[in-house]
Amino acid sequence: MPSSAEHLDRVIQEIAAEMAARPDRGTVATYIPELARVDAGAFGLVVIDADGHVAAAGDCDTPFSIQSVSKVFTLTLALGMVGDRLWRRVGREPSGTAFNSIVQLEREQGIPRNPFINAGAIAVTDLILSGHKPREALGEILRFMRFLAEDETITIDEAVAASEQRTGFRNNALAYYMKSFGVLDNPVEFTLGVYFHHCAIAMSCRQLAMAARFLAHSGRNPSTGLSVVNPERARRINAIMLTCGHYDGSGEFAYRVGLPGKSGVGGGIMAVAPGKASIAVWSPGLDAAGNSHLGRIALESLTKRMGWSIFGA
Amino acid sequence: MPSSAEHLDRVIQEIAAEMAARPDRGTVATYIPELARVDAGAFGLVVIDADGHVAAAGDCDTPFSIQSVSKVFTLTLALGMVGDRLWRRVGREPSGTAFNSIVQLEREQGIPRNPFINAGAIAVTDLILSGHKPREALGEILRFMRFLAEDETITIDEAVAASEQRTGFRNNALAYYMKSFGVLDNPVEFTLGVYFHHCAIAMSCRQLAMAARFLAHSGRNPSTGLSVVNPERARRINAIMLTCGHYDGSGEFAYRVGLPGKSGVGGGIMAVAPGKASIAVWSPGLDAAGNSHLGRIALESLTKRMGWSIFGA
Amino acid sequence: MPSSAEHLDRVIQEIAAEMAARPDRGTVATYIPELARVDAGAFGLVVIDADGHVAAAGDCDTPFSIQSVSKVFTLTLALGMVGDRLWRRVGREPSGTAFNSIVQLEREQGIPRNPFINAGAIAVTDLILSGHKPREALGEILRFMRFLAEDETITIDEAVAASEQRTGFRNNALAYYMKSFGVLDNPVEFTLGVYFHHCAIAMSCRQLAMAARFLAHSGRNPSTGLSVVNPERARRINAIMLTCGHYDGSGEFAYRVGLPGKSGVGGGIMAVAPGKASIAVWSPGLDAAGNSHLGRIALESLTKRMGWSIFGA
Amino acid sequence: MPSSAEHLDRVIQEIAAEMAARPDRGTVATYIPELARVDAGAFGLVVIDADGHVAAAGDCDTPFSIQSVSKVFTLTLALGMVGDRLWRRVGREPSGTAFNSIVQLEREQGIPRNPFINAGAIAVTDLILSGHKPREALGEILRFMRFLAEDETITIDEAVAASEQRTGFRNNALAYYMKSFGVLDNPVEFTLGVYFHHCAIAMSCRQLAMAARFLAHSGRNPSTGLSVVNPERARRINAIMLTCGHYDGSGEFAYRVGLPGKSGVGGGIMAVAPGKASIAVWSPGLDAAGNSHLGRIALESLTKRMGWSIFGA
Repeated sequence: MPSSAEHLDRVIQEIAAEMAARPDRGTVATYIPELARVDAGAFGLVVIDADGHVAAAGDCDTPFSIQSVSKVFTLTLALGMVGDRLWRRVGREPSGTAFNSIVQLEREQGIPRNPFINAGAIAVTDLILSGHKPREALGEILRFMRFLAEDETITIDEAVAASEQRTGFRNNALAYYMKSFGVLDNPVEFTLGVYFHHCAIAMSCRQLAMAARFLAHSGRNPSTGLSVVNPERARRINAIMLTCGHYDGSGEFAYRVGLPGKSGVGGGIMAVAPGKASIAVWSPGLDAAGNSHLGRIALESLTKRMGWSIFGA
Repeated sequence: MPSSAEHLDRVIQEIAAEMAARPDRGTVATYIPELARVDAGAFGLVVIDADGHVAAAGDCDTPFSIQSVSKVFTLTLALGMVGDRLWRRVGREPSGTAFNSIVQLEREQGIPRNPFINAGAIAVTDLILSGHKPREALGEILRFMRFLAEDETITIDEAVAASEQRTGFRNNALAYYMKSFGVLDNPVEFTLGVYFHHCAIAMSCRQLAMAARFLAHSGRNPSTGLSVVNPERARRINAIMLTCGHYDGSGEFAYRVGLPGKSGVGGGIMAVAPGKASIAVWSPGLDAAGNSHLGRIALESLTKRMGWSIFGA
Repeated sequence: MPSSAEHLDRVIQEIAAEMAARPDRGTVATYIPELARVDAGAFGLVVIDADGHVAAAGDCDTPFSIQSVSKVFTLTLALGMVGDRLWRRVGREPSGTAFNSIVQLEREQGIPRNPFINAGAIAVTDLILSGHKPREALGEILRFMRFLAEDETITIDEAVAASEQRTGFRNNALAYYMKSFGVLDNPVEFTLGVYFHHCAIAMSCRQLAMAARFLAHSGRNPSTGLSVVNPERARRINAIMLTCGHYDGSGEFAYRVGLPGKSGVGGGIMAVAPGKASIAVWSPGLDAAGNSHLGRIALESLTKRMGWSIFGA
Repeated sequence: MPSSAEHLDRVIQEIAAEMAARPDRGTVATYIPELARVDAGAFGLVVIDADGHVAAAGDCDTPFSIQSVSKVFTLTLALGMVGDRLWRRVGREPSGTAFNSIVQLEREQGIPRNPFINAGAIAVTDLILSGHKPREALGEILRFMRFLAEDETITIDEAVAASEQRTGFRNNALAYYMKSFGVLDNPVEFTLGVYFHHCAIAMSCRQLAMAARFLAHSGRNPSTGLSVVNPERARRINAIMLTCGHYDGSGEFAYRVGLPGKSGVGGGIMAVAPGKASIAVWSPGLDAAGNSHLGRIALESLTKRMGWSIFGA
C-alpha cells in the first residue's frame, strides 16, 4: 500500500472521529416514517482513489436511501439513451429556488431548470421510461447501478417507495404541471412510479463511491478500464453537479467544499475530485437547504486536507 | 521558451484565426452609444501560464469596457476590507434570473443572491464606499486594478461612466430597493456613482489576464510572489465565479467551458484555470444571456485543447 | 305586460341584433373537442326582472357548457354546508394572475386567493365532497341547480366531463399542489371528478338567468318567495363576483359593465343587477382574458341602456 | 330637516359611539414621525347625502394626511387632461400583491396594474406633470381639491412631504423601475416630488366627504349642479375604487362594506354610496393590509344600517 493511501486512510479516520464528536447533527427528514426513524447519529465516509484504494470509515456499509443522488445516474442513463435531445426537456442552469418549487415552471413553460431539481429529474425519468413499461425502465436503472458499483446486492427499498408514492403530492403537482405543457410523454402515474422507486434505491457509502468512479476518471471505471461515458460527458455531468447538485445550497457547497457533488434527502452526498477520487458520505441530519449537515462539513474538511478543491490549491 | 509555451502560443493563434473566420458574432450591446459603436469584428485573447509566459492573439491590447468583470475585483477588495461580514449583505447562490432582476430582491428582503448580479455588486460597492468619499473609494479600486495588472495606464472611460449614469434607471431601482431594506449604508447616488465608474474601467485582454493571475495561483502573483489574498479566499472567489459568473448563463458556461470566469456586457470574459493559467478574451458581440458569444466559444475551444477543464480530463 | 317589460324586451332584441351584426366574435375555446366545435356565431341573452318578466333573445334556449359559472353555485352550496369555515381554505381577494396560475399558491402556502379561480373552486368542491361519495356530491350539486332554475331537465354533458378529465393536467397540478399543503381533504381524483362534472353542466341562458334570481333579490326567489341564502350572503357572493368573477379581466368587467358577474370558458356569463334583474348571456367566442367577447359587450350595452350599473346612474 | 336626515344623524352618532368604545384600534403607521405621533384614539365620520345634508361625528374637522386617498383625485385630474390615453401607462386590474410590490412590474414590463397602487399613482402623477414644472402641477392638484371640497383652506403638510421624500426609497425604486421601461416621461425626482406632496395633503373628514360628492352623484356636485366629470367616468372611477381601492384588502372591503372606496395609510377612507351619499371616515390605526381598522368596521356598520351596499338590499 503506497503512503498516499495511508495518508488518505488516516485523514478519513480523523474526519470520521471529528464528526462523531460533534453535537450539531442537523435534522433528519420526517416526511415519511422510513426516513424519520433513521438514526441521526449515523455517519459513513468512503473515498476511492485513482489506484482503486478504498478508504472507509464509520457506517460505511450501512445502506441508506440515496434519494436525489439517484438523479445523477438517471441523467447519465438518459443521456446514453436519447443524447442531447434530453436538453429539449430540461435546462442546465441553477434554479435559484427550492428543490420542489413550481414557480420556475410557470415562468419557463414547464421546462425544469436542471435535471437535479425534482421536476427536472421527473422529466429525465420520463425519457428513460419512453417506450417501456415502468417495470422494465426500473429494471434498467437498477441494472445500471449494480453495474457501476460492481455489486449485485443493490436493491430498492419498497417500503420507502410506497411511502413516497402515498405522500408525494408535491411531485404529482410538478409532474402534472409539466404534463400540461407537454413536457412529459408518459402517464404521470407511470413516470412517478419509476421516479419514486429509483429515489428509493438503498446503497451504502461504499457502493455509492464505487458507482461514482466513472465521473472522477474521465468517464471510465479505472479498475476495469471500461468506459461508461465519454470524457466530455463525464466533465459535463460534473459541471451540472457543481452548479445544481445541492438545490438552493449549490453555491454554498461550491464555496465551501469545491467539488462536484449531489446530495439526497436521505443524508447521502456523492462527490468527485476529478482525476483523484470518488467519494460518498452519509449522515442523515439535514441543514436548512435539505443537504446533509455533517456530510457537507466532512467533505469541506476532506478537500482542505487533501488539497482537492477544483478551484485551486 | 519551453515547448509548452510554444504549444500554448500555437493554440491561441489557431483559436483567434478560427474566431476571425466565424460569421456568427452575437449582438453588440446598444444601451449606451459608447458600447454600441464598438467594432463587432474585434477579437482578442490572452493567456498567461504559471511560468508567466504571455500568449496573446488578436486585438489583445485594445482597451474595452470591462463592465461586470470589475465585480470580481470589487468583491476581492471588499472582502479584504470587511471580511466575511460582507456575506450579511449579499448571498452566494446562483440567482436563477436575469442579471438585473428585482423579483429576487422582493422575495429575499433586499439581500442580493450573489455579488455578481447587479444588485449584489452594488451592495459590495456600498461596502467599499463606507466611510470614504466616492472619489476616494474609486481611487482605491483603480489603484487595486493597476497593482494587480502591474500597469499604471489603466483608466476609467469617463464617457462610458457618464452614459451609464444618465441611463441607469434599472440600477437606480435596484439600489433604492435595497436601500428600502437597509442593505445600503450610503446615499444611493454616491454608491451608484462609484459603481458606474468601476464598471467603466477600460482594460485590454493583456491587462485583464495580468490582473487575474492571483486567482489562478492560490491568491498570489506568481511573478512577484506577492500574496493578494490567501489561498482559501482565492478558491472561494473562483467558486462564486463558477456558479454565478455569467448571470443566467452560468450553468451553460460551466457545462461548456468548465472554468471559473466572469463576463461583462462589454464583451470581455476573464477566466482562470486554477494552477495553470489566467485568461482574458474579448469579443463585443453578446449571446442571449448577455455574455460574449465568441468569447465563450473561444474559451470552450481553449479548455478542450489544453485539457484545462476543472471537471476532469 | 307593463311598459317597463316592453322596454326591456325591446332593449334585449336590439342588443341581440347588434351582436349578430358584429364581425368580431372572439375565439372559441379549443382545449377539448366538445367546446371547439360549438358554433362561434351563437348568441343568446335572457334577462329576468324583479316582477319575473323574462326577456329573451337569440339562442336563449340552447344549452351550453356553463364551466366556471358553476363555481358561483358550488360556492353557495358549500357556504350553506360549512358556513364561514370555508374561508379557512380559500381567500376572497382578486388573484392578479391567470385563472390557472400556480405561482400564487406557492406564495400563499396552498390557499387559493378566491373561490372563482380554478384552485379555489377545486378547494370549494372538496368541501362539498367531504363525507360523501363523489356521485352523491354531484347529485347534490345538480339537484341544487335544478331547484334554483326550477327545471328538472338540467343535466351534465358527460362527453365534456370525460374530455376535461382526460386533458385536465393543469387542474391536477393545482389540486395536488393544494393537497401537498393539506388544503384538500379528499383524494384528488375524487375531488377533481366532481369538479370536472359540475363544470360540465349544460344550461341555456334561460335556465341560468332563472338560477341566478336569488342573487339579484336579496337571497330569495322572487316568484316563490323562498329564501335560498340570507340577504347578507347574497350581497357577499355578489361582491366576490364583482372583484373576482372574470379571472384577470375582473377589473375590466367592473369598469365597463358595472355588474357582479361570473364568466365561463364555454362563453356564458351570468350577472345580476341587484334588486332589478338576473341576467345570462352566451356567446362562445372568448377574449384574451378568457371571457366571452360579445357577452361582455352585450352586458355593457345592457347596463348602459337600462341604467343598471351598481356604480351610479 | 327631513326625518331621513335625522335618521342618518342618529346612525352616525351611534357608530361613532360604538367605535369610541372599542379597544381594538389597529396600528398607527410609523414609517415617518409625522404619522407615528398621531393619536390612535382619534375617530371621525362624515356622511353627506343627496340633499346636501352633512351628518358628522367625532373628530370630523381634524385634518389628517390623506395619503393614498389623493390617488382618486389625481386619477380624476389626469383623465381630464389626457383622457383614455392614460390607460397606456397603467392598467385597471386588481394587483393581487401588496401596495408597494415591484414583482408585478417585472412581469408586466413596467406597467402598473392599476392607478391606486403606489406605482400606478406615480405613473398618473407623471402624466399630470408632463409639460409643467413640479410646482405648477402641484398647484393644479391643490386647486382641484379646494374646488371639489369648496374649501380654500386645504393645504399640504410640508413636514409630511419632507419626511416622505427623505425615506421614500421604495417609491424611488418603483419609479426608477418604471422609468427603465419608459413608462415615466419626467425626471424621477420631479415626479416623486409631486407625488410625495399630493400624498401629504391634509384634510378633515368633512372636507373629504365634500370633495367626494361628484363620485356619488353621477359626476356632478349636487349642490351647485356643476359637472366635474361625465356620469360614465364617475361610474368607472367608482368601479376602480371597488376593485383596487384597498390594496390587497380590496376583496375584503367589497365583501364586508360593499361600497367603492379608497383608503390611505394616514387612516382615512373615502367612500361613496352611488346616488345616495359621499362618506369620509378617519381612524389612524391600520389593519394588516394597511387600511384603517375602525374605519372599515364603521363603514361596514353604516352600509348595513342604511342598506347602502351596492350588492343588494
